[in-house]
Amino acid sequence: MSKDNTFKIHFLPNDKYVEIEKGNTVLDASHKANIYINSICGGDGICGKCKVILSSGKVYKQTTTLLTNEEVEKNYILACEAGVVEDLQILIPKETRLEGKKILFDQDEQHSLTWAAILNKAQFKQDTLTKKVFLKLEPPTMDDSVADHERLYQAIMMKQGVELNVMQTGYRILKQLPETLRQSNWSVTVTLGHRGTTLEIVEVQHGDTSQKNYGVAIDIGTTTVVASLLELSSAKIIDSEAIYNSQMKFGEDYIQRIIYSIQNDALDEMQKTIVSDINKIISTLIKRNDINLYDITSIVCAGNTTMIHFLLGLDPSNIRKEPYLPVANSIPPIRAAQVGIDINSRGILYTLPSVAAYVGADITSGSTAIRLDKEEMPSLFIDIGTNGEVVLGNKEWMVCCSASAGPAFEGSGVRHGMRAAKGAIEITHISKDYEVSYSTIGNVPPRGICGSGLLDCIAEMLRSGIIDRSGNLQKSIETDRLRKKEDEFEFVLVEKEETGIDSEIVITQADISNLVRSKAAIYAAVSILIESMSLSISDIHSVYLAGGFGNYLNVRNAITIGMLPDMPTSRIKFVGNTSLTGAKMTLLSEEAFETVQKIASQMTYFDLMGNPKYMEEFMSANFLPHTNLEEFPSVLEELASQNTLSKGKSKLTKSP
Amino acid sequence: MSKDNTFKIHFLPNDKYVEIEKGNTVLDASHKANIYINSICGGDGICGKCKVILSSGKVYKQTTTLLTNEEVEKNYILACEAGVVEDLQILIPKETRLEGKKILFDQDEQHSLTWAAILNKAQFKQDTLTKKVFLKLEPPTMDDSVADHERLYQAIMMKQGVELNVMQTGYRILKQLPETLRQSNWSVTVTLGHRGTTLEIVEVQHGDTSQKNYGVAIDIGTTTVVASLLELSSAKIIDSEAIYNSQMKFGEDYIQRIIYSIQNDALDEMQKTIVSDINKIISTLIKRNDINLYDITSIVCAGNTTMIHFLLGLDPSNIRKEPYLPVANSIPPIRAAQVGIDINSRGILYTLPSVAAYVGADITSGSTAIRLDKEEMPSLFIDIGTNGEVVLGNKEWMVCCSASAGPAFEGSGVRHGMRAAKGAIEITHISKDYEVSYSTIGNVPPRGICGSGLLDCIAEMLRSGIIDRSGNLQKSIETDRLRKKEDEFEFVLVEKEETGIDSEIVITQADISNLVRSKAAIYAAVSILIESMSLSISDIHSVYLAGGFGNYLNVRNAITIGMLPDMPTSRIKFVGNTSLTGAKMTLLSEEAFETVQKIASQMTYFDLMGNPKYMEEFMSANFLPHTNLEEFPSVLEELASQNTLSKGKSKLTKSP
Repeated sequence: MSKDNTFKIHFLPNDKYVEIEKGNTVLDASHKANIYINSICGGDGICGKCKVILSSGKVYKQTTTLLTNEEVEKNYILACEAGVVEDLQILIPKETRLEGKKILFDQDEQHSLTWAAILNKAQFKQDTLTKKVFLKLEPPTMDDSVADHERLYQAIMMKQGVELNVMQTGYRILKQLPETLRQSNWSVTVTLGHRGTTLEIVEVQHGDTSQKNYGVAIDIGTTTVVASLLELSSAKIIDSEAIYNSQMKFGEDYIQRIIYSIQNDALDEMQKTIVSDINKIISTLIKRNDINLYDITSIVCAGNTTMIHFLLGLDPSNIRKEPYLPVANSIPPIRAAQVGIDINSRGILYTLPSVAAYVGADITSGSTAIRLDKEEMPSLFIDIGTNGEVVLGNKEWMVCCSASAGPAFEGSGVRHGMRAAKGAIEITHISKDYEVSYSTIGNVPPRGICGSGLLDCIAEMLRSGIIDRSGNLQKSIETDRLRKKEDEFEFVLVEKEETGIDSEIVITQADISNLVRSKAAIYAAVSILIESMSLSISDIHSVYLAGGFGNYLNVRNAITIGMLPDMPTSRIKFVGNTSLTGAKMTLLSEEAFETVQKIASQMTYFDLMGNPKYMEEFMSANFLPHTNLEEFPSVLEELASQNTLSKGKSKLTKSP
Repeated sequence: MSKDNTFKIHFLPNDKYVEIEKGNTVLDASHKANIYINSICGGDGICGKCKVILSSGKVYKQTTTLLTNEEVEKNYILACEAGVVEDLQILIPKETRLEGKKILFDQDEQHSLTWAAILNKAQFKQDTLTKKVFLKLEPPTMDDSVADHERLYQAIMMKQGVELNVMQTGYRILKQLPETLRQSNWSVTVTLGHRGTTLEIVEVQHGDTSQKNYGVAIDIGTTTVVASLLELSSAKIIDSEAIYNSQMKFGEDYIQRIIYSIQNDALDEMQKTIVSDINKIISTLIKRNDINLYDITSIVCAGNTTMIHFLLGLDPSNIRKEPYLPVANSIPPIRAAQVGIDINSRGILYTLPSVAAYVGADITSGSTAIRLDKEEMPSLFIDIGTNGEVVLGNKEWMVCCSASAGPAFEGSGVRHGMRAAKGAIEITHISKDYEVSYSTIGNVPPRGICGSGLLDCIAEMLRSGIIDRSGNLQKSIETDRLRKKEDEFEFVLVEKEETGIDSEIVITQADISNLVRSKAAIYAAVSILIESMSLSISDIHSVYLAGGFGNYLNVRNAITIGMLPDMPTSRIKFVGNTSLTGAKMTLLSEEAFETVQKIASQMTYFDLMGNPKYMEEFMSANFLPHTNLEEFPSVLEELASQNTLSKGKSKLTKSP
């Protein structure tokens, strides 16, 4: 039964019911039910990732080329294209679900690990952005009739060595002050917060609460939101937590979300969504650790420029239009409550600075975390995701750019691509007789292949001669795994009976081309930066690899396919989620906070889109490992020994 | 007819009706009707100033000694002691009304007078606390893709020479910025406001509005609120206005108001009352000059410590309890909207700093206005009201104190005392045959005598031998004007038929004693400060006299009675309402704003109440002009020539 135009949708296997009006899509219904359905294009009917099975009822649907005949027979529909016209039962197949993803934490990170040592190693003075200071004021007498407010300032100055003229007091604090001082018998704990050049009295509490001072560091990723709860006075990480960014329902990548927010006038909704995620994660952290919201006095947020815009409700529309402008790179500290974040009502939100529309606070935070500003020799910081941000620099200069790597590394634009979630093929070895070895995340039957798995796969296919240096599948090899289907060659990684889905898992020629383009984008970005400083690869001392992808990457394979420059793997370091690490450091050290500002203002941004040299570099990198094999001597050696060099269109004669 | 316990009170001559519940007093009813009734004690039945005539109905009243038998016969009652038990008609007699007071303006002040010269003379650089700067930004291009916020900062930096790290931007401004910049075609006017060590972007407006920038300077007096509207970019005074402080209904002096606010938990009410006055005065100013509230970007407030507390809703209760503590002397700039003041919603309220509970922002503002901090030689700044605040200092040091002069100078505590309002006797000359010449404010029949008139009167009585140096009326003189009534001698200044009230105007022995005590309090304060610096009167270079009283004071008479030190009258200057002048200067000059802060922090406060020397000095000054005549050589000469010295208890032998 349905009243008027409202219909009931029953989602399986979640067993969730939701009512939705006629005219909405099944994808809309899933949003309403708070069920994540894989969707990359954000509901535009382009990516074909939102496949669901219509187990009961009928939908209004358009014809699509994104479903095979086989799928159509099995009642597969695209959730985003299926208009609701009656009550439905929808089964979400495994490959469309979003579950059990490995969300990146620092692996070293233990509960209650003291960060004093980490700060010390990074040469940052421990000096939290907000601090609580216990003060025993001298009660006033006729001989000492200094006013309440000035009495407090004097005590702070005595204890903290703060100059009076930088102190600021909020109006509400001032109003409560005489009562607070007298009721506490002149023993109070003052919360001081850095705000630009001033030091603000955030809070005055009765008695000694100086040990109850917490901060939250947050990395707002396009996909995941990761947070750490820190006890500030002892510089300890209390706990960490991660959740998916609920904005995913508006589009998988941030450009889609900008478009959604413009087309639907939904900037407020975008802001509320991310703020709600942050509040949820903080709520989880405080409940699990029995901490009062009131005692959280600061929050530091890092993230790409668009995520920061959404967090603050800043209009992101100029980010995707020439000349690609953020509203602001540097965001002044504001009260967290102003954006709706639930911590102490006067607690401060510190948002880390961006450099440009496509080099955000995640990169400045990361560069700070790895102390790129302390490097003697030029070093690279590479953060790989849908965009690959690259920073080249040392203690004297920094240049940066962002390469549109495409979603292949995130498992998208690839037939059986998936996120690094449960069932994703992680490591692949392909033997001389083309047999494939693999493991999966969660040790379950494979459901697809994630970015790092794909990268390993391509490297192995190159080594075993399944593909040539152009990435072309070699028809000549003798194996049943290579087959032609619908005019395209594909290589069967896992047979149907072994998978956890209802088909085999294959790598198509298109998949390979996608990945080659992605890695070429990264390498071309590296090349452009190196050239811009008139350096060569041999001048690069270290490479720091960050991002969700980074930690699981086989570096040797990344060099073999020509994504990373050819250098000793010992000089390539995984640095994990440096965006979060940097946020933690700034929470704990004003010096780190100043450093991230300094790094942001010093970084020179190169726009690759408008750079003709970039296209040239990209074309040269669009081979395995590269057109110019001289840039990859170790790969030359490796491939020569495996006798695979002769296969494929070698262009050894072309100069880069 | 009255329903239940509510009764109708009809006030005459105002012809206003008000309904009030049983149990309230007639004074309460007058508050409700917004009719001012003279009341000094704030309704405690002590001052006897709230006499009204009960022309119809009966009240519940207590016996009082504050009404003469004659008054009781004429149906006089004390409004504060008269409990309402039925409908009433109340006639407010002239002497109880508050009307037509001369409110102190700067006499030189003309509409549109340029203050550039005044600032220049005071050696203050013209540099308004909030300023509007018109900026033509370069529109962004692919070669110049600086973010909106940073683009704005750069333009400000280029035009104003401001360092970037001191800049602050409010969250709302940031959110509106992309739209504002594009809609204005990159031509905007930025309002910058000084807030401590930072410079805040208060507002960003389309186009060039830099000429529309107004500020309001306000002196919040206990009795009157005086305001000037300034056009900031040209440093012109547009207009000024004054109204009574509506808090008067809660008590005439500020201590009474503190008590009222504590007893009635009425801090909020006190704040709302003064803020409402300020809003009224601003509203009058903008309507008269066709200015938009939105274009008022700053307001500077000066006033005594208690008035500032009421303005900000800060608990003043510790001001009247040992050790006499303000909540704060230095008040950070806040948004005017935070206290309810109606100017631009992001406009800034700058509150000038106090020194102590009894030396307020009116004094620091005044000391700034007269540039006491530039004096080479020690000089005195005296602001005379119910409290006489005295500052002694020069460019190197300042000491200050507050003497409780009592209300005699304000016309209170004196039988026929009144404020300097219409009908107040202003100048009195008494001839050798004891005939009295006078003029009145407004040239109407006299209704009483104001502070300065009283002071003249005492000086003339001393000269003519009506009183001796102790202030005692001389029974021996031959005139009908001297008479004994109810065991006390009094001197008839104006016969009944000449006055505008229903009786003669007399000066009683008690009145004289009150005034002598008042002047002694001031002189003793001056002496204490001079002594504290081991100086003598001859070291004092100038005396600056401020306050409502100051401008109308006959200086020679003030010296004759020993209120001011004996020095050439040419070195005694009337400086008018320096509290307002200082507020205007700070509005126009950041340097002046910094100076007032510096002066406040440098002033050393002497508490006279706890000072045994003060009582000694007070006793010595409790003669006319002083116990120690050597301190008053010119008075000695004057009185000797008039042969009045021999009269009275001379104590020439006693050292001070």
